[in-house]
Formats: sequence, C-alpha cells, structure tokens
Amino acid sequence: MKLYHGDIVYSENRDKLNVFENSYIAIENGTVEGIYSSIPEKFTGAEVIDHGRGLIIPAFSDLHVHASQFIQRGIGMDLLLNDWLNTYTFPQESHFADPEYAEPIYDAYINDMIRNGTFHASIFTTIHRNTVNILYKKLEEKGLWALVGKVNMDFQSPAYLCETTDKSLRETEIFLEEHSSGERVKPILTPRFVPTCSRELLSGLGKLGKKYGVGVQTHVVESLWEAGEARRLFPDCNSDSQIYEKTGLLGNGPSIFAHFIFPTEDDFRVVKDYDCIAVHCPEATTNVIAGIMAVYHQQELGVNITLGSDIGAGVKNGIYRQCAAAVKLSKLKEFYEPEIGKTITISNAFYMATKAPGSVFGKIGAFEPGYLFNALVIDGVEDKNHPMTPEQRLERFCYAGDDRNITARYLAGNKLSCV
Amino acid sequence: MKLYHGDIVYSENRDKLNVFENSYIAIENGTVEGIYSSIPEKFTGAEVIDHGRGLIIPAFSDLHVHASQFIQRGIGMDLLLNDWLNTYTFPQESHFADPEYAEPIYDAYINDMIRNGTFHASIFTTIHRNTVNILYKKLEEKGLWALVGKVNMDFQSPAYLCETTDKSLRETEIFLEEHSSGERVKPILTPRFVPTCSRELLSGLGKLGKKYGVGVQTHVVESLWEAGEARRLFPDCNSDSQIYEKTGLLGNGPSIFAHFIFPTEDDFRVVKDYDCIAVHCPEATTNVIAGIMAVYHQQELGVNITLGSDIGAGVKNGIYRQCAAAVKLSKLKEFYEPEIGKTITISNAFYMATKAPGSVFGKIGAFEPGYLFNALVIDGVEDKNHPMTPEQRLERFCYAGDDRNITARYLAGNKLSCV
Repeated sequence: MKLYHGDIVYSENRDKLNVFENSYIAIENGTVEGIYSSIPEKFTGAEVIDHGRGLIIPAFSDLHVHASQFIQRGIGMDLLLNDWLNTYTFPQESHFADPEYAEPIYDAYINDMIRNGTFHASIFTTIHRNTVNILYKKLEEKGLWALVGKVNMDFQSPAYLCETTDKSLRETEIFLEEHSSGERVKPILTPRFVPTCSRELLSGLGKLGKKYGVGVQTHVVESLWEAGEARRLFPDCNSDSQIYEKTGLLGNGPSIFAHFIFPTEDDFRVVKDYDCIAVHCPEATTNVIAGIMAVYHQQELGVNITLGSDIGAGVKNGIYRQCAAAVKLSKLKEFYEPEIGKTITISNAFYMATKAPGSVFGKIGAFEPGYLFNALVIDGVEDKNHPMTPEQRLERFCYAGDDRNITARYLAGNKLSCV
Repeated sequence: MKLYHGDIVYSENRDKLNVFENSYIAIENGTVEGIYSSIPEKFTGAEVIDHGRGLIIPAFSDLHVHASQFIQRGIGMDLLLNDWLNTYTFPQESHFADPEYAEPIYDAYINDMIRNGTFHASIFTTIHRNTVNILYKKLEEKGLWALVGKVNMDFQSPAYLCETTDKSLRETEIFLEEHSSGERVKPILTPRFVPTCSRELLSGLGKLGKKYGVGVQTHVVESLWEAGEARRLFPDCNSDSQIYEKTGLLGNGPSIFAHFIFPTEDDFRVVKDYDCIAVHCPEATTNVIAGIMAVYHQQELGVNITLGSDIGAGVKNGIYRQCAAAVKLSKLKEFYEPEIGKTITISNAFYMATKAPGSVFGKIGAFEPGYLFNALVIDGVEDKNHPMTPEQRLERFCYAGDDRNITARYLAGNKLSCV
C-alpha cells in the first residue's frame, strides 16, 4: 500500500471533472483503493510519496497513431493529402521491410510516447510483419498497453507497398497466432482503409477477426475523397462503416474508427450497433485538410469519441496537445457550421483523452476504486506567486505545456523512467 | 570580424527561401558582410564560430502581443471572446496599476520571449503609464527591439480600466515625451480598438501622432462584432481602417493592424494608401473564434502580412509556432472558403515571421549585406542517422520544436544568454 499526495484530477464523464485538492490517493497492488483528504487511520505507517502541488492525473491514451511515420513528423506539412502520401509517407513506409531501418524508429517513437505521458495506444505500423513484431516486443518490454496492427493493403497501392490478397491474409493470421496470449499488448486487424483494400481482403480479415476474437482499427469517412471512394467501390453498401459490418469485421473486439468526419446516418447506425469508437485527431485532420469533426454533435448522438495524435499527419506525441487542439477546432466548427458545431470544454477534451479511450484497455484512464494507477504528475505550469486552481493548471498544461511539465510517471503503480 | 559556420537560411521574399548549406556568414560590427561557401582569403585568421549542422536563421519578430496578459496564458480558452475578456483579461489588466504586480510578469514575459527567439516585438501593455515604463526599461536593458504602447480606453470599458479622455491623452503625451530618444525601443500609440475609444480620444491621439512622429498599433476588423461596432459608432466612415485615417492616426510612423480578418474594399484602400502592416495571429484568432484571415488572398492584393503571438488570446511565445499555425489555418480557409482561401507554404509563413516584420525595426529579419545579425541557431531536430535538408529542419522546428532547439542567440552579433 502506498499513498500519493498532490492535487488529484480525473474525468468522471465528459461533463464532470473530479478534483481533489491537497489529497491522497491510496494504491494497492497497482490499483486505486480510494482518494482521501487526509491519511485515514487504517493507512497509518504506509509509505507516502509527496508530489506537493503537483497535479496527479491519469496517463493519456492515443487511439490513432502510425508509429512507422514518427520519423517523418513535421515534414511536407504544406502539401495536400495525396502529395504528402505519395512524396513522403508511402516511400518512407516501404523501408520498414528492413529491421535495421525500423528498430531505431520504433525505439524513438516509444521513448517519445512515454516522455509525453501516453501509456496506452492503438497503433498502425506497416505491412511488414517482421518489423511489426519489433515494435510489439518493445511495447511489451516497457509494460505499456497497446493494440498493434500489421497494416493490410492489396489494392490501389504503390507496387512497393502492395501485398497479394493471399499473402496479406496469411501474414495476418501468422501475426494473430504469434500473439494470442498477450496481456497488455494485443493484436488488432488493420486494413489501411477501403480505398486500398479489396472486398476479398476485407472479408478474409473479417473471418480472421471472428476466428481469433480480434477487433479492427481503420480510417472511416476520414475525408470527402475517402468517403466517396468507399461508396464508389462498394455500391451495395449504404455507408463506409457498413462495408466493415458486411465483411464481418465488427463485433469481434474493439472497433476503432479514425477521424469519422463525414458520417452519414447509416454510419451512425453502425457505430451504435457495434459500440464503435471514433477517434478525433484534430491536429492531423487540419494538416491534411480533411475537415473538422462535429465532436459535440456526435457526442449528443451517442458516439464515443476519443483522441489521437495521428503521427505523422499529426506531428507530436502528447495527447494533452490534442485536448487543446480539439477545443480550438470545435470553435472553428461552430463558426463555420453552427448547425452541427459547438464549442467543447477542456474537461470534455480531457475525458476524450483519458477515461473514454482507457476503457478499451481495461480499468484505465480514471481514478475510481479498482482502476489501474497509470498516472502522470504535472508540475511547473504556475508562475511564481500566481497560484492557479487545478483546473486552470490542467488547461495551461494542455495549451502551453510540454514533456518538461511531466515530473513523474506511474505504470500500474510502478515508477516509470524515460530515456 | 567574425565568421559563423552552419546551414544558413533566410527569406528573400515570400516565395523565395535562401539556403546556404555548410557555409559561413561574415559579421562585421554586428551586421552581415556576406555569406560564403568557404572562408575567403580576405578573412584568413578571423575568428570562426562553428555551429556544425545547426541552422542559422534570423531571430523572429512578434508584431502583436499583450505583455500584460502573459500571466493568463492558457486559461479560460474554452470561453468565447466576451466572457474571456470580462472574466479574465480586464480584471487581470487592472492590477497593472501596481508596480509590484507588474514587474515580475514583465520580467517573465521578456525572459520567455528571448528563450523562444523573439527579439523584436510590437507590444500592448495596459493603460497604466507607470508600469508600462517598467517594461520599456527592461526591454532597453536587454537590448531588444520593440515598439511599446500605453493602452488607451475611455469608452465602453469596465470602470476600473476606463480613463477620462483628458487623462488618457495627457498620460500618453507624457509617455511620448519620456521616450523621444530611444534607439531600439520606441513608443507607439495604442488605442485598444474602436469599441473602447471615443472619437475625441482617437482624434487627440492622431494629433499626438503627428506632433511626435509616432505610429499606431490597434485591432482592426478583428471579428465580425468588432467590425460591426466600428461601423455603428462611426457611421460617417466607410471602414474600420478609415476611422484611423480620419482621426489622423495613420502615416505618422508604422501603422500596425492586428488581425485584419474581415476587411472591406475600403479597408484595403487605407492599408495600401498608408503602407499599413497586417498582423495574422493564427492561434489567437482560433482561440477567440474570430474567424480565419485570408492570408494568400490578401498578399495577392498587396497587403504586407506579418505574424503575432497575441498572448494572452495566444498562449505562447515562439513565432515559429505561429508559422505552423498559419499554414494549418490557411488549409482550413481553403477548405471552407475556397474562393478566398489558399494553402500557403511554410516558406511564406517564415517570411511573415522574419523579413516582413523585421523591416519595421530596421535592416532586420534577413541576412543580406548590411542586415543586423540578430540570429538564432536551431539544432537537435533531426533523428539520428536520418539527415534532413535545411528546409525540412526548419519546417519540423516550426511544427514540432520548442525553445530547447534554440541552441544559440545573437543580438547585433553579440551572444545573448537567457534565463
């Protein structure tokens, strides 16, 4: 049993931020026992770790990120999507056939992720199973929580990144078999998106999903172009989402839909029927000019929205940055599309960065009893002689902070150091 | 004579970035003598400072910033403009009557500005002349270049920030007289904006501008509300800009118009007639939901656009951040308003952050012969074994860098340390 003292903050739901100033959080076997304003008699003599005025918050989850694109962050950002993919992303991803190329990049990505307080992530890689496994193993070694996918592409893709349907399915099945017993890191099916996946591939992946009980992550209605391609290629489907439903990919595990900017009514139906999770990537969707997700409107319709860095369309780890970016974009959405746009609160964004996505990994992302103590201590955001409330410090950290403000990291109650 | 070695980069104009890899910049009496690919014979024996693969770039200029709001950065960012002003900004600014309150905030602002490579700025303060002078003196002591304004407000303002017209003019005249001989730091007239300034005040300031040969900075067509108020209060004027023209405030020195988001044809006329400078503050105008400036469109019409942090509506020093934000917003502008929106390049944004605004202060913001060597060295943005071009390193610094990447600072050729 250990007690951690500080200003403890977590989201109960998207409308409610729980704040316990100058309090103690009791941790037993890595999980939260309770939060107390003073040390209860029953814990007399327990070790107390004092973080002073530090904010103790749940560690972040990043539900959409391309680890393989970490190396190209912040390059070619003034190009538009197609040019960016063809000039930088696709040629760069092709090098991941080579373990010597992949390993240092995956190392750098994981170290940066930890430094920025992301301990749980749903990760795209490339088509290359041999190097996906390098990332997989490193995540396990660090003790992080992750869903990791080997990417599938067998259609409308550059020759050097295009698999045959057979090979794509075979490699995926081997990948699933190799990782059937993971505790924290688990495989997830990762068809890149409809425009690069044949119907046969998607159906084959759907069968694997059912056989192995594995979910799916992909890009859904991410741009007008992508949504249009989905309708063109699958004229028998009423929506981009229904393509995944019809090919059997949903309901086998978590279904994670990145971007989800241009949903139709049928997309909403599918998301509701299968408890799909939508991932808002505010910086990335600005960079590739996809448009702005109607976060508030979709939440009102019951969509479970989370946040993603979407590196390399996004440029940095640090989901706290995405909290600020989500609020900013919601204001622009309200300005340009008031009928479906409404400014969201920073508390709402923080919920989308912690508790909402944490549920994908277990009792993670909040500090209710029984939740894992995967936590960060945030400090140094106040100016001397100008004390701020915990809510204000959290907001300033999201808007103007960086990894230097993360002064301690805990993973299931164990202190985690970063490189 | 000193030679600095590195990868030297500066903007010639908005379309042209000059890049001299592995070169030497020769500095004599703090100004640029020339750039050479190897050390010329005539400089044999001169001291060489080697920055290796460091990028040597001009220091940044911030043409719109409220130094008095530094203390409130990143707080209340999910409020809308009016609530934000009334809840945070106005009450906070009222404390600047007290030197003990003002001094540490101005210290912190200046230190942070230097840390982030901004050596030239056009700065709003508050109505309080006594503490404006504290900032003024500190900027002089540091050797920075600045235009500093005592803010004027005599109308539609909270009682605790509202001056009488007489006092506002009298205090301003004393302020101008106190600072008639500055070299690097100079006074600038600073009526907050039309909604808080009476016609009598603006006309009085216009007379002072002419008498003392001093320019003006203010907020012009910054939001639909502000533009509407200007037209309501001055029905005899065809535009917000014309109000400043008619009251004699233009043509006396630099005329710096912050935001300039909703100009009419008459605003464009005024800006052209008086060589006014428009300041784009991309992060700030997103935060206070003012809309998006049509940067490319206005440049094509001949408007000289520069960048500003607009702290505290913006949250951070570091005009490199605004370069990235300007590109991002230009993409959203193109998405929502393709008729006047067009994606700008990162080179264009860098020009708006260096050479365009530098001209307000002298031969500053570029490295052509005769320009002052006010420069930064940017390093540590590359990943090991993944060399990037200078252009790519500059872009990544703007998108994903921070003050840790600024490894040296030069002010008129002298090394500047930061706190």
